[in-house]
This record gives sequence, structure tokens and C-alpha cells, in this order.
Amino acid sequence: MTSDLPTINADRLRRRHLALAAIGATEAGGLNRLALSGEDIQAHALIAGWAADRGFAVEIDAIGNFFIRRPGTDPTVAAVGSGSHTDSQPMGGAFDGSFGVLSAFETLETLEDAGIETTHAVEAVIWNNEEGARFTPGLTGSGTHAGAYALEAMLALRDGDGTTMGDCVARLKDAVPAAAGRQLGLPFAAFIEAHIEQATQLEDSGDTIGVVTGMQGNRRFEVTVTGENAHAGTAPRARRKDAFVAATDMTTALRDVFWDEDDVARFTVGKFEVAPGAKSVVPGHAAFFIDFRHPSAESLKTMGDQVAAVCDRLKGPCQVRVDEVSSARPVVFPDDMQNRIRASAEARGYRNRPLLSGAGHDARFMVDDCPTGMVFIPCLNGVSHNEAERAELDDMAAGTQVVCDVVAGLAQT
Amino acid sequence: MTSDLPTINADRLRRRHLALAAIGATEAGGLNRLALSGEDIQAHALIAGWAADRGFAVEIDAIGNFFIRRPGTDPTVAAVGSGSHTDSQPMGGAFDGSFGVLSAFETLETLEDAGIETTHAVEAVIWNNEEGARFTPGLTGSGTHAGAYALEAMLALRDGDGTTMGDCVARLKDAVPAAAGRQLGLPFAAFIEAHIEQATQLEDSGDTIGVVTGMQGNRRFEVTVTGENAHAGTAPRARRKDAFVAATDMTTALRDVFWDEDDVARFTVGKFEVAPGAKSVVPGHAAFFIDFRHPSAESLKTMGDQVAAVCDRLKGPCQVRVDEVSSARPVVFPDDMQNRIRASAEARGYRNRPLLSGAGHDARFMVDDCPTGMVFIPCLNGVSHNEAERAELDDMAAGTQVVCDVVAGLAQT
Repeated sequence: MTSDLPTINADRLRRRHLALAAIGATEAGGLNRLALSGEDIQAHALIAGWAADRGFAVEIDAIGNFFIRRPGTDPTVAAVGSGSHTDSQPMGGAFDGSFGVLSAFETLETLEDAGIETTHAVEAVIWNNEEGARFTPGLTGSGTHAGAYALEAMLALRDGDGTTMGDCVARLKDAVPAAAGRQLGLPFAAFIEAHIEQATQLEDSGDTIGVVTGMQGNRRFEVTVTGENAHAGTAPRARRKDAFVAATDMTTALRDVFWDEDDVARFTVGKFEVAPGAKSVVPGHAAFFIDFRHPSAESLKTMGDQVAAVCDRLKGPCQVRVDEVSSARPVVFPDDMQNRIRASAEARGYRNRPLLSGAGHDARFMVDDCPTGMVFIPCLNGVSHNEAERAELDDMAAGTQVVCDVVAGLAQT
Repeated sequence: MTSDLPTINADRLRRRHLALAAIGATEAGGLNRLALSGEDIQAHALIAGWAADRGFAVEIDAIGNFFIRRPGTDPTVAAVGSGSHTDSQPMGGAFDGSFGVLSAFETLETLEDAGIETTHAVEAVIWNNEEGARFTPGLTGSGTHAGAYALEAMLALRDGDGTTMGDCVARLKDAVPAAAGRQLGLPFAAFIEAHIEQATQLEDSGDTIGVVTGMQGNRRFEVTVTGENAHAGTAPRARRKDAFVAATDMTTALRDVFWDEDDVARFTVGKFEVAPGAKSVVPGHAAFFIDFRHPSAESLKTMGDQVAAVCDRLKGPCQVRVDEVSSARPVVFPDDMQNRIRASAEARGYRNRPLLSGAGHDARFMVDDCPTGMVFIPCLNGVSHNEAERAELDDMAAGTQVVCDVVAGLAQT
């Protein structure tokens, strides 16, 4: 297989990685580059500059997805795409998302260097607001592309300061005047996304390439507890309607509901707020967010369906409201894409294994759009969404080579 | 006793209450008037205007305490004081603090209307930042007056926006140009503070006047939990260092430590924060504040001394730091002041009972300065630090009459 396929340039990949990681860099070596913040727009502009140097066209669609295009010989067929995102979590890492974008861009450069003509155009994609940290929901760009989210609703999303997504997309377009407009939802012939694993299966097994079989499903809940503000010095325990007490009784009991011997269920309360939040006031209000993920549709149902009942049972003298704000079914990637990824890894001599993605990725929505696959590489201690997130250059190069091989194979057919 | 003592003007008290409660009023009938905010300064200016109309002098000391003075016949003896505070908790009530200020001001007006000459000057006092909601610690004004807090440190306090207390005191002085400067810590001959009970003992017993015997002691702790941010979708439970989980294990166990059959201990977590606070990030940081109060010095020690050990035992894979940030011993008011309050209530025919203050008040620090007492009146359902806080005009008038009687008696001796 490798005989007629070009080799990627690992040193260039390293340089591009360092340049991209510098935009929004934190002192501890991480990244604070929220979706379409000034830093994230600067990251897009940097890559647009690289594209211009190589003669690749840049296009932006209505929701701020960013496409770098190397044309194919047949303009009537859809492009083969690869990519991920440039936004990060607050104080996140420099590899989550960025690696997938860089591997896609390196694929275009490798094909260009080798002078390979492809039937299909090949595109590197930056999906907008994958993380969902600044604007909720995440996967905004890929979800809107795939038709899962309505464009108008997504453009109307507001961040914590009240800025709309629509304003941010306009700023992105202003910052990259050379970019052309692009029809929203233009289909791909196939799509592949490379990403750090964000877990330790590859590290534990010593494998370099993860052939991703599918993706966990998820259910997200917002729980709002209403009690009554009272004076911390005078209100007797028996008369209190303490929303903090009720809310923590709920979260503690829910940890038992989601406890499984084999440690597969992912149950997280990452956002928890009390109000008024004054030191000497019994809090009359508490709100928290449940992020629950599981690869099994049945477990998603049986575990997730207990949330409302547990919260109601433990509300004490308070009132509680439970809203399920989003959910996604588990995803399975098509065998043909998994086989192409495995074949490349085998041909290149990279140790590989199949594994399930614990995290959500843009490929979740692409799977409804076209044949889609994902390639994972290890990251240090599985740490992600953290400034300490790290991946090895050799592994990044291997993952990029697999992307390049698969894209080249698909684009030439 | 009442034969030679004047009667307060309940209708004027009502009008003054409504005018003062309008400044910083919330839609639900509460008050949002943080210490030396624009609204709180406006409240001071309103009262300064009333003072000017009555020919009373106004003075401001270096920490922003506000004194309205009716002179006595002997300028060599200290004033008899009464008062409380005009600042409120965020979305608090219109009676906490304000009632004590209004009863003190009504006392001056009543003496003035009756043309009574007193040996001692009589003063109505507005202590600065009693609540401690905007600037920490609370009781800033009375504590600095009494020498418990250092002036420079208190002037350097910053609110959440970085504004210093010193800047706010300067703004207060600018807003009341007629006020003269006042030496910090000028002693009083005696001090009495009227306040709503903020609990239900009076309401439950049907009494009008609470003769306050003393005040709970307290210990305050800040607990900081440090774990590690991780990806909510991928990090297995066994590998997480979830600061929220550890912190809620601590607060739940501490509820057991502070649980007492007779419901006397007051244990509150009113401030609890997780960071980064993102929905799909296992939080690596949590911090909470413990407000613990008890009338018994022994219980303050035995219960409070367990905080650090419990937090350490339940830190799991995280690290924890426990800081005791403040404490105060229980306070006992002198018998003579209690007797004077009881005698007035009896003479006026107000049902009364001795009771302990659950809340902290400025009188806590005045007790070290001069003979000090407190008068409580009922408030609806004991609700306070809440927009639903309410007191009856008849009860406010009764409490004010007791203040006036006690002050007149003390000022004439």
C-alpha cells in the first residue's frame, strides 16, 4: 500500500504545531483559546496564511466552519475531508482539536509536495465551537453542517458576556478577507478525524494508533434546586430550606446510581453553583449540570432515567427541577473506514488496536453525512482538557501519516 | 418610669422607614444595598438631610462610621449611643440594620420634640459594612471603632471589583459635605442596639421585646480542594482527582459533625465554588466557606476543631487546605443594660423575654468599649437576609420606645 503513497513531513508538522500552540498559550504550556475568541480567530488566520502560501483556497460557511481546499480533477464529485477544531476548553491543552486540524493540513501539503493529482478535492476542515465551553451546545459547526442544529438558533447563541455567535462568525470573516463564502452543508465523499485519545488505553497497551470503532452516547441534565435564603446565624437547621444541602445530597446519591464495577459509565458534575453565594446566608438556590456518557444505549437509558427520581427523592424541604438538555445516541463508524485506517497502520508498521471514543468529537455528526472514521494517538497519562495535556511528535506523525494514506486512497478512487 | 419619659412618634417612624427602604429596594419588597454602594451612600445622605432639618450635627470617622449628634449639657462626658447599619446582604431585607438606625434617630427626634436636656450627648450611629457581603470581614466599622481591626488594613479591603474600602469612605464623605471629621474610636458612655430577631423565639412565644442576654461565638473556615482537571468523557472514575467529589464528601460529613439533637449549632456552607466550572471538565478545584456559630465556648472548640481532620480524611486523591479565617468568642451583655431594657418593657406593658442572639451584630464589638445592650423585636417567620424579611410597625414602635427610654435614662445621669 505504501509504495504509491507519499510520506508526510514530520518536521514541518512539528513547526506548524509550535506556531499554532503559541496562540492562546498559557504559562504552564496549555491553551486558553475559546471558540472564536480573538485568539481562536488569530489561529484561523494563521492557517489561512499557510494555505495562501501553498495556493490552497479558503472558504467559510454561514456557521463559521473553515475549509482549506486542494482541488481534484473531477469538480463534480464531493471532497474527501479531514479535520477537527482549533478552539480549546478554558485552560485546556494544545493538542485536543489542533492535532486533527494540523494532520489534515499536512495531508494537503504532502499531496501537493508529491504532485499527486486526486479525483476528489481534498479539504482540511476547522469545525467551529467543538468544545461548547464558550457557547452551548458544543459541536456547533459540525452539527449545523450535518443539519442536526438549526443555523438561525446557532447564530443566536450568546456567550457569558452576551456576544452572539453570529457576531463572532462575522469577526472571523473580517479577519480572513481572502476567504470565500461556502454553501452550508455541502456534503463530503468521506471524512476522517485524527485526535488524541484523551484516555489511557493506547498508553497502557503500548499501541500508537487507535482505530476508533465508535463513540459513547450521552445525556446531559440541568438540575435546579430552590429553597429559601436564611440567616446563617439564626435559622435553626430544622427550619432551613438549604438548597446546597439538598443539591449535594442529590449529587452524592447520583454517584451511587452511576457507579459501575467496570468503570465504564462517565458521570461528571463539572458545573455547580449556589446563590446568593454569600458566606453568612443559607443558600436558597443551587444549580448543577450532569454530564453522563456511556457506550451502551441500554445503560444510557437505565442509569439516566434515574436522575429525576433521585433528585426528587432527596429534595428535602426544597423544590427541584430536572431538565434533560441534550442527548446523543452511541455512534458506530463504518467497517470500511475502520479497515482503511487499520490497513494504513499495518502497512506503515504502527502497532494499533480498536477502541471506543470516550469523548464526543465532530465526527459524531459527520457519520450521518458520509462514511466517517477516526484515528486516535496516545496522550500522556490520558490527561486532556488540562494544561498538562501532551502528545509525542512521533505519535502525531504516525497519526498524520494514517490520515494522509486514508485520504489519498479515498480521493484517488 | 414612664412618667418623665417622652413617647416616640410611631407615624414618623413609619414614614422614615418607608423612605429609607425605598433606597435599594427590590421588586419583591427587599433590599439590595451593599455597604457603601451608591445606594448605601444615598441612604446615609438621606439621613444626613433629616439630621440637618432637625439641627443635629453629622460626623464621619476614618472608617466611614456615621454619627448624628444631639449635644448634652456637659461636653466633658462621653455620648450615649444607639444605632446599627444601613447596608444589606445581596437581595436582603429592609429591616435588618435599618430598624436599629431608625430607632436611634427617632430617639434623638423624640428628645428634641420634648425639649429634654440631657447631661450626655445622644448619638445615632450607622456602623459601616456590618454585613460583610461586599467587603470581608463584616462588622468593619464597629470593629475598627473598638480597636479590634487595624484601620489601614480595613481601608485596604477590596470588593469583588477591586474597589477599596478607602475609596468608598472617600465617596461617602464627598456625598455628605456637611459632615465633620470625627476622631476614630471616641468612646461612648453606653450603647444600645435595636434589631429584628432574625429567628422565631419571640414570634413563637408571642412576646414583643427580646432582652438580649448575649451573642453566639463563631468560627469561620475556608477550605480549598485541589485535584486535577480531566475530560468528563474519557477519564475513568478510578483515575479522577475530582475536587467537587472530595469537597462534597467533606461538606456532607461535616453536617454530621455539627449535627446536634437540640438544634443549637449553626453550620452553614453558603459559598461553594468549583473551577474551571465547565460542563464537560472534571473539576480540579473547589473551595467553600464554613460559617459555624454556637453560644457555648466549649462546643465552638470541640466541634470546630474537627473541621481540619474531617476534610483531610475525605480528601481522596485530592489535596486540601483548611484555613480558619476568623473567630469570635461568645458575648454576654452586662446585667445593668439588660435590667434597663426589661424595666422599660415592663413599664410600657410590652411582653418580653430574655434571649440569646444567634446573629452577630455591631454590639459584639461595643461590649468591649462601654456598657452595651440589645433589644430585639419579632420578624415574620424569623426570615432574614431575604427579600421576604418583614416586621410589624407596632413592634418597631415598641422596640424604639425601649431604646428611647433606656437612652434617655442613661443620658440624664
